[in-house]
Amino acid sequence: MSTLKLGLVYCSLIFNVLFVYKYLHGSHDLVDQKWSKSAAGEAEAVAAVSCSGHGRAYVDGIISGDGKPVCECNACFTGLDCSQSVPGCILDADSGNPIYLEPYWMQHAASTAIVLSGWHRMGYEYDDGSLISKELHSEIFKLHDIVKNVNTTGRYLIFGAGSTQLLGAAVHSLSLESSQPAKVVASVPYYPVYKSQTELLDSTMYKFMGDTSLQNKSDSSTNFIEFVTSPNNPDGQLKKAVLEGSNKIHDLAYYWPHYSPIVAPVDEDIAIFTLSKLTGHAGSRFGWALIKDKAVYERMVKYMDLNTYGVARETQLRALKLLQHVVQGRGNDLFEFGYGTMKRRWELLSKTLEASQRFSVQHLSSQYCTFLDSYRTPSPAFAWIKCEQEDDEECSKVVLGEAKVIGRAGSLFGAGNGYVRISLTDSQDHFNNLLNRMKKLVSQERTQSGTRLHFDTTANKTWDVEYQNMGVDQEMQGSLDGKTSVAVHLQAAITFAAT
Amino acid sequence: MSTLKLGLVYCSLIFNVLFVYKYLHGSHDLVDQKWSKSAAGEAEAVAAVSCSGHGRAYVDGIISGDGKPVCECNACFTGLDCSQSVPGCILDADSGNPIYLEPYWMQHAASTAIVLSGWHRMGYEYDDGSLISKELHSEIFKLHDIVKNVNTTGRYLIFGAGSTQLLGAAVHSLSLESSQPAKVVASVPYYPVYKSQTELLDSTMYKFMGDTSLQNKSDSSTNFIEFVTSPNNPDGQLKKAVLEGSNKIHDLAYYWPHYSPIVAPVDEDIAIFTLSKLTGHAGSRFGWALIKDKAVYERMVKYMDLNTYGVARETQLRALKLLQHVVQGRGNDLFEFGYGTMKRRWELLSKTLEASQRFSVQHLSSQYCTFLDSYRTPSPAFAWIKCEQEDDEECSKVVLGEAKVIGRAGSLFGAGNGYVRISLTDSQDHFNNLLNRMKKLVSQERTQSGTRLHFDTTANKTWDVEYQNMGVDQEMQGSLDGKTSVAVHLQAAITFAAT
Repeated sequence: MSTLKLGLVYCSLIFNVLFVYKYLHGSHDLVDQKWSKSAAGEAEAVAAVSCSGHGRAYVDGIISGDGKPVCECNACFTGLDCSQSVPGCILDADSGNPIYLEPYWMQHAASTAIVLSGWHRMGYEYDDGSLISKELHSEIFKLHDIVKNVNTTGRYLIFGAGSTQLLGAAVHSLSLESSQPAKVVASVPYYPVYKSQTELLDSTMYKFMGDTSLQNKSDSSTNFIEFVTSPNNPDGQLKKAVLEGSNKIHDLAYYWPHYSPIVAPVDEDIAIFTLSKLTGHAGSRFGWALIKDKAVYERMVKYMDLNTYGVARETQLRALKLLQHVVQGRGNDLFEFGYGTMKRRWELLSKTLEASQRFSVQHLSSQYCTFLDSYRTPSPAFAWIKCEQEDDEECSKVVLGEAKVIGRAGSLFGAGNGYVRISLTDSQDHFNNLLNRMKKLVSQERTQSGTRLHFDTTANKTWDVEYQNMGVDQEMQGSLDGKTSVAVHLQAAITFAAT
Repeated sequence: MSTLKLGLVYCSLIFNVLFVYKYLHGSHDLVDQKWSKSAAGEAEAVAAVSCSGHGRAYVDGIISGDGKPVCECNACFTGLDCSQSVPGCILDADSGNPIYLEPYWMQHAASTAIVLSGWHRMGYEYDDGSLISKELHSEIFKLHDIVKNVNTTGRYLIFGAGSTQLLGAAVHSLSLESSQPAKVVASVPYYPVYKSQTELLDSTMYKFMGDTSLQNKSDSSTNFIEFVTSPNNPDGQLKKAVLEGSNKIHDLAYYWPHYSPIVAPVDEDIAIFTLSKLTGHAGSRFGWALIKDKAVYERMVKYMDLNTYGVARETQLRALKLLQHVVQGRGNDLFEFGYGTMKRRWELLSKTLEASQRFSVQHLSSQYCTFLDSYRTPSPAFAWIKCEQEDDEECSKVVLGEAKVIGRAGSLFGAGNGYVRISLTDSQDHFNNLLNRMKKLVSQERTQSGTRLHFDTTANKTWDVEYQNMGVDQEMQGSLDGKTSVAVHLQAAITFAAT
């Protein structure tokens, strides 16, 4: 009995020590967290919902009948927990949705979480009367100074709803440089929004005039506004302005180490960036422009004032938190993840398309990058695919019809419909699916009935043709007799080998 | 010794019970919070910063040298903790900054806090491919159904960056109803943004034509786009459309129980609302429009797509959380606070101005409100002040010069500069200061040296003049001899009474 008592005392004391330790250790939560506790619990619970690695739940998502947040699945996955794949589904690769960066932020959850009070920044303006967070301004400049992709010295900074809104603000501002209507131009292939946005309101102040190559390059009497997109969307090429003396808008959305070598700091009049392509937060609608000229800047500010009266405070807080994380790591972690992912994807896709006679893809070469301090292989955000065969008139229809992949038609970029833009920036599930479908499409070139192959018999080569299956048609039989080129209709798999 | 032992055992057991209770009660924090803990601690710490009740600190504010968040002070307060008032400061009452609602959200902190993960909704679109949160859509409809201020049946819903962006989208969409350029009009006094936004891009599709009274009301060949603002900004009057057959944009920013009686659900083609005036979150840049016609809606969607590609996900989450709170309380708490505050402010200010011969203010009458189910006294967001004396040509300059209050000049509203709009929606500090200055201004009418009073001696009246202080100057003495009007320079308080 006495031993039992003593045992109880010891047990009790041990428990006390444990609880005191736990209490002191967990004191931050118990003492500090009052109003944020419930929201934090909810957010953590939602984040912990398993969607089989093929989706995620959100705090503002739909709630199921049993009160649980519903999974939102990656492309071509379905089911309550996103565990079922949908083999024959249409894969949308039209949008440059930058979901490939989502796993990065999941890995850095603690340093990028935000807790927002109900009374956070209710006013129209910041304390200094502006629509721009000073802290975010400073963080953006710090990041550019680390990456050295743009010259920030003496630049004015303005924020917009993604680069989208800033493009419109810049066109409007530059159109006022002359009393004559401005001609808005871009080099083909160009980002489609330049055209559609410029034409939307049918302003008397500017007109979209299409490709730079159609303009008189030394015409100094016209107020040209030239979009210079570098790396270019869709094809990832580094670009320079074409027209002499034009007012330029440099769209540098993709001029980050994920997608491009940093060859030198851009030192131009207007340089536009967007959070979408830097951190992947496309839904936050946040972009910024660095502007050299004060009058141009002030007219852009006026446009922003009258168009939306600035960018949401929640968005500026989010951008600040994300950029603080990036700056703290001097960009290394994010760019390593971003470049690594995009490079692997490009290697896989471009290798797949190399084997094709039917499809070609843009050529990009390795270049020295000042940020990485080394040569780097290409890692573009998009594949700019060309259908090489005459029969494949509309490349987007070919890809949709035969691979069930939605791409963006070349005509929207001012190029022919022989081209299609395919996005490589979506989730890993999305890319895996895309790659498999392109592989299948390319492999079908070798087996599919009716596929055309062109080869040139004028080259100093002879061809060995092995029929692995019989059934080659008459055109094939006739084509070998002294013609300079032949079209081969295949009804069976054939292997060609140069001898 | 045995008693001591027993005492220890009991003490220990009691502690155990206490700790077990505390552990179980606080278990949510200890078990669930991982990645959100640091952000929550930071936000709670910032919220706890004392700014003497005359300011607040923010998580994205400036950090002082000692690592503490810096207080951002209310108008005319300064100092590290905002404890010092600045008596002679300029008071900005130009903006309709809805800071008066800030204390409400501080009182409801737990139900309106948000915890946002670093990977929250990175994509361009929601799961259904739209730019609009379904949950928020549903919450907005629920709220309208509670307040009964607008008919939601069969309406399409679109979101914008405040009402600002939606006004532009609506004008653009309605201008396409006819191949002729549309004439954009509003009844004087009108919200200045209608004019400045419509004129900004000099579109060939529409022109701002000013006051509805200048138009031919029965002109059916013109595509009129009429802004109908009810309650009106600046004067709080409930308004109806003036032009027959015009396309109408109903701006209902202030049609909430804080500012207006709800007389009936508005049942019009386009009804625009904004979070700024409902919850006070102006900085979130969130508004919505209810649209009857599908084609009009689709053109507005296209405009939003090309202008900003929708509204930030952070903003939609914030609006959702705030509206969930409002809907849960069936609006009662918020509207009681909002109406109570605005009503008190109006009573105080209008009573002050009643005593004035120099300034008048708009007349608003009590009206039956279906939401409150009772008659309610007025509670407008703005005082629309008229300077009644000829010498006070520019009322905004009078108010600025003599009371150091910045108002918005009447000319911007299409009215004369004899008017000025003064905002009543800022912080309590701001309003107290404003009221004191207006009281002083009015009291000076009776005592100030050099104040001019005009009275007409042709009227069939004689005047009894009581000099309450001696020192009336020569002009006064001479003016009573047979002139039709006299100017009286006062050096002392005088009471006039018609006999």
